[in-house]
This record gives sequence, C-alpha cells and structure tokens, in this order.
Amino acid sequence: MNRTQEIEAVLGNLVSAVNMLRCCPEFTSLIPEVRVNLAYALPDARTTQEVAAVDGRITAVGGLPYASGMPAWGVSDHLARRILEVRKYDAEINAAINFKCDDVAIEVVRKYCSEQGLVFGWLDRSQEPKDTMESDGTSMPWKVKQLVTKYGAVPRLFYEGAGWGKEPLFLALGKDAVEIVSMVIEIAHRYSEKTQK
Amino acid sequence: MNRTQEIEAVLGNLVSAVNMLRCCPEFTSLIPEVRVNLAYALPDARTTQEVAAVDGRITAVGGLPYASGMPAWGVSDHLARRILEVRKYDAEINAAINFKCDDVAIEVVRKYCSEQGLVFGWLDRSQEPKDTMESDGTSMPWKVKQLVTKYGAVPRLFYEGAGWGKEPLFLALGKDAVEIVSMVIEIAHRYSEKTQK
Amino acid sequence: MNRTQEIEAVLGNLVSAVNMLRCCPEFTSLIPEVRVNLAYALPDARTTQEVAAVDGRITAVGGLPYASGMPAWGVSDHLARRILEVRKYDAEINAAINFKCDDVAIEVVRKYCSEQGLVFGWLDRSQEPKDTMESDGTSMPWKVKQLVTKYGAVPRLFYEGAGWGKEPLFLALGKDAVEIVSMVIEIAHRYSEKTQK
Amino acid sequence: MNRTQEIEAVLGNLVSAVNMLRCCPEFTSLIPEVRVNLAYALPDARTTQEVAAVDGRITAVGGLPYASGMPAWGVSDHLARRILEVRKYDAEINAAINFKCDDVAIEVVRKYCSEQGLVFGWLDRSQEPKDTMESDGTSMPWKVKQLVTKYGAVPRLFYEGAGWGKEPLFLALGKDAVEIVSMVIEIAHRYSEKTQK
Repeated sequence: MNRTQEIEAVLGNLVSAVNMLRCCPEFTSLIPEVRVNLAYALPDARTTQEVAAVDGRITAVGGLPYASGMPAWGVSDHLARRILEVRKYDAEINAAINFKCDDVAIEVVRKYCSEQGLVFGWLDRSQEPKDTMESDGTSMPWKVKQLVTKYGAVPRLFYEGAGWGKEPLFLALGKDAVEIVSMVIEIAHRYSEKTQK
Repeated sequence: MNRTQEIEAVLGNLVSAVNMLRCCPEFTSLIPEVRVNLAYALPDARTTQEVAAVDGRITAVGGLPYASGMPAWGVSDHLARRILEVRKYDAEINAAINFKCDDVAIEVVRKYCSEQGLVFGWLDRSQEPKDTMESDGTSMPWKVKQLVTKYGAVPRLFYEGAGWGKEPLFLALGKDAVEIVSMVIEIAHRYSEKTQK
Repeated sequence: MNRTQEIEAVLGNLVSAVNMLRCCPEFTSLIPEVRVNLAYALPDARTTQEVAAVDGRITAVGGLPYASGMPAWGVSDHLARRILEVRKYDAEINAAINFKCDDVAIEVVRKYCSEQGLVFGWLDRSQEPKDTMESDGTSMPWKVKQLVTKYGAVPRLFYEGAGWGKEPLFLALGKDAVEIVSMVIEIAHRYSEKTQK
Repeated sequence: MNRTQEIEAVLGNLVSAVNMLRCCPEFTSLIPEVRVNLAYALPDARTTQEVAAVDGRITAVGGLPYASGMPAWGVSDHLARRILEVRKYDAEINAAINFKCDDVAIEVVRKYCSEQGLVFGWLDRSQEPKDTMESDGTSMPWKVKQLVTKYGAVPRLFYEGAGWGKEPLFLALGKDAVEIVSMVIEIAHRYSEKTQK
C-alpha cells in the first residue's frame, strides 16, 4: 500500500465502524459525559495529526448514536496520544474507542472478557503521582506503563477509574475501528438489557 | 401567552442563541471535555421534560461550534436540574450554559464580572459531603445552596472546581438563552485572545 | 408581541414542526429531488430575509427525515418568495412546505382534500408564457395569479405540474409550520401505505 | 485487495473528497436545486447497492458545503446507475458528481476543458424519445449512448440540458472521488469569481 491507500484504508474503516454504531440504539446508553470518540492511527503515525477520528465526536441525537462530523485527521487529542503510547508496547494496536464506565458496565465487560478469553484490565488513577497527573504529557506514559506492569501487556478492554476532575472511562483497543466497534456493540446490547430491567 | 406560545418562545430563543454561537469560531476554545449544552426552562417547569436544550449538545466540527441536533424537550439532565434548583432562590433565572474552566478562563471571567458589576462565584467541590456527592439528586441542592450561602444570591457566572470524577466547569445563568450566549461570546473573544498569544 | 417575540415565535414554531417530521419515517418517501424546505414568514415580511427556513433543507439520512441545519433567516429563496406573493391575496398565509408530486401523491392529496373540505389545486406550468418562465421574478406572480383566477383563492394544497427544467412539486400553505406539517404527516402516512403495497 | 479492502478504499476516498469540499465555500454557488451527490462504485459493482455515496446528499449550511450524512452503500440511485452504465463503455470510470448548470457554468467548464485537453460534452435532452424519457430504466442507457455516439467516448465533463421536469445538470466522471472533486473545486473557484463580479 502507498501512503494514499493507507490514508483511505483508515478513513474507510472508520466510516464502516461509524455506520455500524449509527444502527445500534443500545449504544446510546454507553455514551459517557465526555462523549465517544473513535480513533485510528496510520501504521507509522508519530503525531496526533496522523491519527484520524470523528470530528466533533459521537453523541446521541433523537435516541440514536450520531457522528457530529466526518472522520478527519488531527481531531482527537486524548485517544490519539493513547494509541501512540500503547504502540510502544504492542505494535498491533491501531484503533481505540472510549465508553461509559459504571458498576453495570464493569460487570458486563468483566463477563465479556472472561467469555472471550481476554484480560480484563483496570487502572487505579488514585495511585497516579500528583506531578504526573498535572500534565497530559506525562500522565499518558504513566497510565499505559501501569497497565503493562500489572497485566504483562496492554489489555484490549480496560477502564480507568475516576480521577480528580476526570470521569471514569472504559477503553477498547484493537487492530482497526470495525474490530473494536464490533466488541463494543456486543457490550452495549448486554448493558442495555441489564439497565432496562 | 398560552402554553403553545410559551413553548415556541423558548425554542425560538434557543435557535437564535445557537445561530449566534455557530458564527463564533472563538467559542470552540471554550468547549470543555463534556461538550456544551444550553438549556432554557418553561416559566413553570417542574421536571426536566419541561426544559428544552440542544439534542446531542454543542461540539466543534471543522473548527466551528456545531449543534448536533435541534433544540428539544427533556434532552438535558444536568443543566435542566440546575435551572430548576436555582429557581427556588431566583425566579428570574430560566436559562443556563456550561463552558470550559481553566486558569485563563477564571482570570477572564473574573475581570469580565468586575467590569460588569457582576458577582464572580466559585464553588469548592472538595467541600462536598461524601454522601451528597454520590447522588445526583442531593448534590445539586447542596451545590446551589452553597452558592447562595456564600454570595447571598446565585451568581450569574461561577465555576465549580474539579471533583472526583468531575471536570471543573463554568456556568452562566440568565433570563434567556440569547442573554447568556451574548455574555459567553464576549468571554470567548477575550479567552481566545489570551490563549493565542 | 414585540419584534424579538415575533422572531422567536417563528423560529420556535419551525423547530416544533421539524421535530415532528424527524419522527416520521414515512415522510422520507415524499421527499422530492430538490429536497424539502419549510418556510415561515414574519407577519410583515417584505423580503426573503424576513422569512425563516431550514438552512440546508430537509433530506433523508439513515432512513429518517433530517434537517441539515437550524432554522435561519434568508436561507430560502423559492418558498420565501412564494409566501410573500401568496399573501397579496390571502393575509392568513405565513408558512409553506413543498413535497413530492407523482401519480400516487396526487391521488392521496385529492382524497385528503375532499375529506377535509379543502380545495385541491393544480397549476399547469405548460400554460406559462415563455417570457414569464425565464425569470423567477415574473414566474411567481404569474403562478399565484393563475391559482387565484382558477380557484377564487389560493388553495392550501396544490401541485405545480412539471415544467421545462422544473420538477413537479406539491405545496402546502397555512398559518404556521406546525399546521402544515401536521397535514403533510397525515398525507405521508397514506402515501407510504399505498406505495409499500 | 480483498473485498473488505476494496470497500474501505472506496469509503475512505469519499471521505477525503468530502473533506476537500467542506473547505471550499466557493463550491456552494455550484450546488443545484437537487443538491449534490458524489458516488463511487466498487470495481465489479453490478447494482446500486455496490455504489457508495453521501447519505442525504451534500447541501450548503451556514455558507459552507455540508455532507448531511456519512458515505454509505445504496444511498444514491441516479448517480449510481450513471456509473454502472458509463462503465459499459469506459472501464476506468468509478466515480461521479453532479453540479449546477447555467450559462456561466457552461462557459467556465468549456474553457477548463479546452485548457486541460478534455472533451467538453453536452447532451440535448429534448432529443430524447418520449417513451425512453418516461422510464428511468431506459433513459440512462439512451443518454450514455448518445454521448458515446456524439463524442466517440464518454466525456469526463458534460452537461445534460434541461428536460421536461428535469433540472439541467453538469456531471463530472473519473477514476475516484478525489480526482473529480479536485476538478470541480477548480471550476468552483472560477465560477465564483465570475458570478461575484
């Protein structure tokens, strides 16, 4: 693949993933306060400009997931830096998505991981050193390293507990956007069943 | 005004306010992680269903503020409860908007308040009793009461410092959506100047 | 009502009407090639700037009616001029919407009009003088006058047959946007039933 | 490329092209009454379901081109059938876009074609046999065959003059969406200059 083909492969995969989410009303119950983003990095990405994500994030409108804008480059900060950092330990990770973390979600994801033979990860942000916490630049390396130390590798599904000024969030990581959205849609169906009872 | 006229007055005022924001690229720098909402309550609103807000919140797309959906009823939870609670102390408040709180925003809003003869308020969420914090139902009354106790009335502009799992946020309150958006646009211009230096 | 109240009443009524359409999947089958707009004029409007409509028109996305943008002023040309011209004959008309015209729609609207005691109108554009046709400025007065001459008043529901370079279209007129959208939603349900057999 | 890669290449190329249009305010002046669509077919597409396009078409909101929805499969009828028919004569064509046709656009495109060494094509729809015209299924083969007969090949840029009930339109054809959007953006800049004088 040349560069243009790589770029279009990333954008096209994001569109397929977004179109899957649009058709899943159950996913709206997993949208956190900070809304959802879905990011996918070029194979050799070094900066957040080489990571594509949904411009304006994914929110809920009229009871359905809604992508505010098109996939575009350089429109995600947090998820993009997440992918770049994770790749230092696991070169197979290209894509990331965040979703709501509460007691029911923790229970649902834990069970899903156990069924799928996946490591269920979590990160205790209250352990984060104060000087690290205060800078995004140092917080991300600390967080990813903690996960690797604790689990021997970066888990594909994990949550970061609440922090001071930070909403707790689940993260899913994988080789592409369609792969992780497929996981999250399955989780959304289970979450929705449990919370609607 | 009959009920239908009251309903349309609220929705129409929200549209005018959203159209003002759309034309203000500087406002994008004041969009917090949780995105912005803009809510406006009917005169006698008792539940969040009687408060209109922007469905899907206001985010940034292509570098411009973007309303994900139309103004609609019952689509805001937090801001709607905020207005209902504030009104117990100040019947003139009908509308609320949230925006980003950081050191520069605090400095800009403080100066703006002093120029306009407005009280500059802030709420220390670290003072919040643990049992109150854990329930949205009791947290809101506690927060509004704290402000009233501290300032003698609900300030029109104030911020809530970070909490555990909670992003710090500014709130602007006023009689309608156009009034508070006018204030916030002025603040956005000043914030944007300071942060672009 | 003062001017601001009049402005907000128009915008708010448009939002209510758009929110009704958004919930009506059947309406998508009535969207013509030129897409739908919905316009509402201020009481004393003299120019298209004083007529509000949906910025970007109403189209179908994901199988549901979708308003591309917010209601705004001066964003409709054809429907706005339509309302201004019609008002010279009927001061009660403030709002207009267009929708698809085909054989089934003609049959459905004809029956609806007969049930509701409304005049069913149609305009034969092939009668239009060539010099009139070539200018939007003279075509609109000719068309409205033809209807008034033929029916004694402007019908609330009528179609304009195809013209050279012009798609045939139905128009609904009324006192406000909610009133005409209510009619069109009823027509959409009947149309959808007939075309899905 | 396997099938999934082909699918993502098409969707990703459409996103790149749409993002180019979004940044081109001059393009809004080339949006026709029927709005714009942009379609791109899979290499071996046999039905319109195998052609991707912008769901809800491209319109103008706030003075900028706006894609109402995401690229998706089976959401274009006319442009999709156009591509399928053209390919019977020219296997290199995968993508198509339509835009406004008026006297200025004709002049601008004619000059552009002459500079670029491209054939400037036009189709006189008034020559279309009445029985052909009445059916979309037979009209498309007739139109494409006329062009091939007249020019020896399908021109990359041509217009179809107005028809009965049909707006005149320009079409651009090419190997992918980015290629044709690049041409159309250049044309939009020239058109905009001429019409704003």
